[in-house]
Amino acid sequence: MQAGRLIEVGQFEVMEVPEPVPAPGEVLVRVAAAGICGTDRHLLRGEFLGTPPVVLGHEFSGVVEALGEGVTGLQVGDRVACDPNIACGACPSCLRGRINLCERLVAVGVNRDGGFAELCAFPAHRAVPLPAGLGLREAALSEPLACCLHALDIAAPRPGERAIILGGGVIGLLCLQLCRLAGAEVLLVTRSPDRRRIAEGLGARTVALAEEARGVWPRGADLVLECAGVAETVAESPRLAARGGRVVIVGVLARGETVAIEPFDLLVREVDLRMAFVNPFTQGRAVQLLASGAIEADPLITREVGREELPGLLAARPGPSEVKVLVTG
Amino acid sequence: MQAGRLIEVGQFEVMEVPEPVPAPGEVLVRVAAAGICGTDRHLLRGEFLGTPPVVLGHEFSGVVEALGEGVTGLQVGDRVACDPNIACGACPSCLRGRINLCERLVAVGVNRDGGFAELCAFPAHRAVPLPAGLGLREAALSEPLACCLHALDIAAPRPGERAIILGGGVIGLLCLQLCRLAGAEVLLVTRSPDRRRIAEGLGARTVALAEEARGVWPRGADLVLECAGVAETVAESPRLAARGGRVVIVGVLARGETVAIEPFDLLVREVDLRMAFVNPFTQGRAVQLLASGAIEADPLITREVGREELPGLLAARPGPSEVKVLVTG
Amino acid sequence: MQAGRLIEVGQFEVMEVPEPVPAPGEVLVRVAAAGICGTDRHLLRGEFLGTPPVVLGHEFSGVVEALGEGVTGLQVGDRVACDPNIACGACPSCLRGRINLCERLVAVGVNRDGGFAELCAFPAHRAVPLPAGLGLREAALSEPLACCLHALDIAAPRPGERAIILGGGVIGLLCLQLCRLAGAEVLLVTRSPDRRRIAEGLGARTVALAEEARGVWPRGADLVLECAGVAETVAESPRLAARGGRVVIVGVLARGETVAIEPFDLLVREVDLRMAFVNPFTQGRAVQLLASGAIEADPLITREVGREELPGLLAARPGPSEVKVLVTG
Amino acid sequence: MQAGRLIEVGQFEVMEVPEPVPAPGEVLVRVAAAGICGTDRHLLRGEFLGTPPVVLGHEFSGVVEALGEGVTGLQVGDRVACDPNIACGACPSCLRGRINLCERLVAVGVNRDGGFAELCAFPAHRAVPLPAGLGLREAALSEPLACCLHALDIAAPRPGERAIILGGGVIGLLCLQLCRLAGAEVLLVTRSPDRRRIAEGLGARTVALAEEARGVWPRGADLVLECAGVAETVAESPRLAARGGRVVIVGVLARGETVAIEPFDLLVREVDLRMAFVNPFTQGRAVQLLASGAIEADPLITREVGREELPGLLAARPGPSEVKVLVTG
Ligand SMILES: NC(=O)c1ccc[n+]([C@@H]2O[C@H](COP(=O)([O-])OP(=O)(O)OC[C@H]3O[C@@H](n4cnc5c(N)ncnc54)[C@H](OP(=O)(O)O)[C@@H]3O)[C@@H](O)[C@H]2O)c1
Ligand SMILES: NC(=O)c1ccc[n+]([C@@H]2O[C@H](COP(=O)([O-])OP(=O)(O)OC[C@H]3O[C@@H](n4cnc5c(N)ncnc54)[C@H](OP(=O)(O)O)[C@@H]3O)[C@@H](O)[C@H]2O)c1
Ligand SMILES: NC(=O)c1ccc[n+]([C@@H]2O[C@H](COP(=O)([O-])OP(=O)(O)OC[C@H]3O[C@@H](n4cnc5c(N)ncnc54)[C@H](OP(=O)(O)O)[C@@H]3O)[C@@H](O)[C@H]2O)c1
Ligand SMILES: NC(=O)c1ccc[n+]([C@@H]2O[C@H](COP(=O)([O-])OP(=O)(O)OC[C@H]3O[C@@H](n4cnc5c(N)ncnc54)[C@H](OP(=O)(O)O)[C@@H]3O)[C@@H](O)[C@H]2O)c1
Ligand SMILES: [Zn+2]
Ligand SMILES: [Zn+2]
Ligand SMILES: [Zn+2]
Ligand SMILES: [Zn+2]
Repeated sequence: MQAGRLIEVGQFEVMEVPEPVPAPGEVLVRVAAAGICGTDRHLLRGEFLGTPPVVLGHEFSGVVEALGEGVTGLQVGDRVACDPNIACGACPSCLRGRINLCERLVAVGVNRDGGFAELCAFPAHRAVPLPAGLGLREAALSEPLACCLHALDIAAPRPGERAIILGGGVIGLLCLQLCRLAGAEVLLVTRSPDRRRIAEGLGARTVALAEEARGVWPRGADLVLECAGVAETVAESPRLAARGGRVVIVGVLARGETVAIEPFDLLVREVDLRMAFVNPFTQGRAVQLLASGAIEADPLITREVGREELPGLLAARPGPSEVKVLVTG
Repeated sequence: MQAGRLIEVGQFEVMEVPEPVPAPGEVLVRVAAAGICGTDRHLLRGEFLGTPPVVLGHEFSGVVEALGEGVTGLQVGDRVACDPNIACGACPSCLRGRINLCERLVAVGVNRDGGFAELCAFPAHRAVPLPAGLGLREAALSEPLACCLHALDIAAPRPGERAIILGGGVIGLLCLQLCRLAGAEVLLVTRSPDRRRIAEGLGARTVALAEEARGVWPRGADLVLECAGVAETVAESPRLAARGGRVVIVGVLARGETVAIEPFDLLVREVDLRMAFVNPFTQGRAVQLLASGAIEADPLITREVGREELPGLLAARPGPSEVKVLVTG
Repeated sequence: MQAGRLIEVGQFEVMEVPEPVPAPGEVLVRVAAAGICGTDRHLLRGEFLGTPPVVLGHEFSGVVEALGEGVTGLQVGDRVACDPNIACGACPSCLRGRINLCERLVAVGVNRDGGFAELCAFPAHRAVPLPAGLGLREAALSEPLACCLHALDIAAPRPGERAIILGGGVIGLLCLQLCRLAGAEVLLVTRSPDRRRIAEGLGARTVALAEEARGVWPRGADLVLECAGVAETVAESPRLAARGGRVVIVGVLARGETVAIEPFDLLVREVDLRMAFVNPFTQGRAVQLLASGAIEADPLITREVGREELPGLLAARPGPSEVKVLVTG
Repeated sequence: MQAGRLIEVGQFEVMEVPEPVPAPGEVLVRVAAAGICGTDRHLLRGEFLGTPPVVLGHEFSGVVEALGEGVTGLQVGDRVACDPNIACGACPSCLRGRINLCERLVAVGVNRDGGFAELCAFPAHRAVPLPAGLGLREAALSEPLACCLHALDIAAPRPGERAIILGGGVIGLLCLQLCRLAGAEVLLVTRSPDRRRIAEGLGARTVALAEEARGVWPRGADLVLECAGVAETVAESPRLAARGGRVVIVGVLARGETVAIEPFDLLVREVDLRMAFVNPFTQGRAVQLLASGAIEADPLITREVGREELPGLLAARPGPSEVKVLVTG
């Protein structure tokens, strides 16, 4: 079958590979839609550690094609999304239920073959069944939505609070929707006019630059969600928070990159910096929110491409009006 | 009466001042013991903003001498500690119950005359009655203990967790005791051999330098409490935290001073930075813990002095074997 | 001036009384709108303990007419709502910040003269200033809304969760709106077709009887809010909760009345019973939510009456299409 | 091999059965010590639902004898405790991380062959490795301790709080130790003088009857832990709680049995009833606490018996001086 494979850092090719065979406890899925994520670009450039050679693609949905030995509870033909993060269950983090911090975390599409392919095999317990109403295209966004749900669990917005979101990519726009759903007012910051238009359609006010956000809400926001993954916006975040506010970091900076904070200011205003990493126990809820229509995936899917376009797309920066690009063919 | 007064930044004198008269709703207290705190030195040097001319001293206990108009629930002769932080009750922070973040916070001994004097008048609702068993000397430590209780509420240790405490002053040694009381193992870092000896007597392991702490617990601590108020130890704190750990900043740096953090490292290990500022709703509990003997004040009271020694003590750095110096005469 | 006064249990009259004079620290308010609450009927029948003779009315708004000695931060002419619950600040509950559980709680309109009068004097720190956009009529609902906000803080709904609300009075309909605002699906239970219509207009599904709710959501609800104050609905609540769900009791039963629970069923499904009593630190937020339009008071104000109608209204049961009756004249 | 088997409700025999063979992903363990639990008696009497015929015993430790296909991270010879609760990972509860509420929970020693046998096979991810210092006998108590840790996580004691524990069995005595470890004062209620003596040795005050507890602490306790599993003590629990206190139910009543609560009293004092069921993500921590010596198992092991004594022991009530009986031969 055809698959988009990271051969080594810097080298990604769409090539012919053998079809995967599901091991005991695994499920074989025919991929219907797979999202391209910033992490894929990071993997290509070696900024985030994968285990090449490996087929990339960790945000995907599809239809069960075969079951490995001993799999129960799933049927051939079932529509599922993949939760790519496989925790070991036995390390100190797993034993405490902090499975996203597993010391031996293996991610589908990062450390083992993923969804930029016709078929993908992964552990059956990582397959999240899709409710009848939910399309396979939309379901491909359940993984990033699950990450955002985790961030919102940590942010714990209360109705009437104000949230500033830094970054208008898919993560920012999903966090926007979750904040709105939780009854918060949202101000989203992105330089891209197209993304601002989408954000406004989803109920946010918008500005182009973090500096402007201060002008809109001079007292700051109860909640600041860093969804850009950029040193400047991380540095800006505490300054945008109100007294007693909380900053949640979702964006990923490069390993080793540092940012300056001012402890006195954080302390006397009790502004906490909290971290939200991937999707522990949230993808089932994500699928429900997409199925109910409470969260809209459609306005965020700005383009659908064939697998052959992957090398070009991964090598280039995302366009300013791009949000989520899905590989659907 | 005699009082230790900050006349302006850089100028502190023990001088004769008129006796205070309790306004309606206030209580007049004859001071029995008043602790010297790092904040007093910061106020003298202008690093923390007070409102001179003002009698300093915000950690004190005494006996009720007179009641202002309309005060009920207290009697002349009652033994009390002073909770120095007077919140307005009406600002956005107060309306949310975050009284320590009051936008119009007035602190006794900082913004109005405090306890380095024979008598002090303050609002009756800031007088915490002392149980029979608790001495006035020990009760003078209820204010710093209340700050530490707030920090521990935020840190939320669970039995069996590991805590690293940076700083062996009164704040570090009280946090040590609270961590032990909550069932945590403690490793305390201080360069002073005398303070290490006290810490060990209170049930902690100790090292002289943060770098050594890594060697003792290579996986890091579930809890890191920064109680030194120094840029280097703040910077070190996240590196000493285990996966899923939390850093609580209690120490106060200078306004404007910055510290570098590494967001990637914090994110993938979900190490949160939380802030603990002063004593919201905790001084009543602090008094109980001292009265029950669960927390020991005695080993931390390293010296008792007369009011006339204040100018010299505030101008100098605290000695390496000093923990809490009380003005008791 | 004219005031509606509870003379003793069973005897309520609208009569001429002297105008109140604000004591030091108090504010005198010309009442604009005062809501009639079930508690007023309970007080009349002696089912809830007040301190007659007392002017009733604890949900009201008005305009500042005069300031007592020493009041700052408020001006004559300011528009305010009254937070009727005055905590002592010094009892064990208050010292822990649980001010709604104050052992010496004094409530305006229950234990001291309230808002069923032309003028009312109460402590200035219990006056919540109204934002420009918010009408005085709507502001009279900020007290019950504050109680519901407290209940929702305790319920802590997450987007996508399901909530069943038992009771379609003002408390149920405000909780409905807060649940919707927090992203929850709502099923409201009330026998009254008029209340069902209002609830549906506010985004809920409705049924007439608790038994029917089970049919709609066979797995139960993540959240069950008892807002009827009736033994049968309290008993029904745990059975309507899903595994891991939580029941929040808001409705007030008679003192001494009991309800049977089945501990085995609660335990193996970990269904908690949580209590929400009055409005600690929530009325400021309530006023903001009304001002922003996030919560609508208007559909709940079903009638406006003159003070002279009070005796008749308090003696009778509320009509089946009545939600909130305001005294505005 | 020899095994103690529940053949059907009412019939338990020690008999010869074939040695188990570890399936793929399973581990075969030679049992060293297995605790007898009240649940075993409930299973025999049909009061709790098992799946006979089944070898009982769900609290045990042992040494790895063989590994099933595909097991990594464990070695033959490793010393382990068994976490008996196997969650499905895919039901709504599991998808939310509430694995103890799994809708398809399978428990070793309840629904599949357990530890009252020479050998037991179970999923490798349910084997908790033992640190060097921890004996196999003590490790057999890690399962009940893990249940108590979950209860304490829910109770969330703070240093200085007061806890009343109803019941002096192994659950009560472990909760006692955890409360002490967390800095709480403890009052334990049990009629048995022997158990009272053990409780006092572990740092609690004791009384024989719940009624007496009120006399000791007239304001009630911040925390009430029901560890008896009896209707009367469940009914008593809220009355023993202080204002703002919380009741945690750990004891298991019979299915269908009911208890009367008084909602008015619970509401105005905001006394919550919380439930704690089994051991989600806590057995790893339990093993650490036993290994460090923070929790003592030894004083609770009142007797060691051979497998042949099981039928007699399960048929009889536990003796009044019995706490934990271990099958070690
Ligand atoms: N924590 C987690 O579990 C998790 C999960 C998934 C993704 N992530 C991370 O979340 C971040 C966002 O992901 P995404 O897929 O939404 O990315 P994306 O589509 O590339 O969007 C990034 C956004 O950040 C903004 N941005 C970039 N540079 C900026 C700058 N210098 N100043 C201000 N804004 C800037 C961009 O703004 P303009 O529109 O102005 O160009 C854009 O709106 C990434 O770092 C990703 O790695 C984290
Ligand atoms: N957040 C709050 O509400 C609150 C309340 C009260 C106090 N505070 C703050 O808490 C901090 C501690 O107060 P304290 O009264 O305990 O102060 P302290 O007695 O002066 O003790 C400070 C400790 O920090 C250590 N330290 C100083 N410089 C250091 C360095 N470069 N590297 C390592 N350790 C260093 C000292 O260590 P050596 O022993 O090695 O010299 C000493 O043990 C202060 O910043 C104070 O302002 C905060
Ligand atoms: N916890 C707090 O802080 C707090 C604050 C304010 C009020 N409350 C309490 O909250 C409750 C609701 O207040 P409210 O002002 O909304 O009262 P309300 O207007 O009288 O509404 C009561 C609702 O309960 C329903 N109900 C009455 N008896 C019922 C029964 N046997 N079965 C089913 N439903 C029944 C009524 O249903 P139908 O429509 O079917 O007649 C009605 O919808 C009261 O108990 C009040 O005391 C509590
Ligand atoms: N929630 C969970 O996950 C979980 C886990 C394990 C066990 N459990 C349950 O926890 C409970 C305790 O287990 P255990 O192993 O400790 O049981 P146990 O050894 O039988 O101890 C029960 C205790 O309850 C007391 N008790 C019995 N009847 C009483 C009564 N009428 N009044 C007052 N006290 C009474 C006994 O008191 P005397 O000393 O006065 O006779 C004894 O101290 C059981 O119900 C068990 O099923 C729950
Ligand atoms: Zn792991
Ligand atoms: Zn304030
Ligand atoms: Zn009080
Ligand atoms: Zn499950």
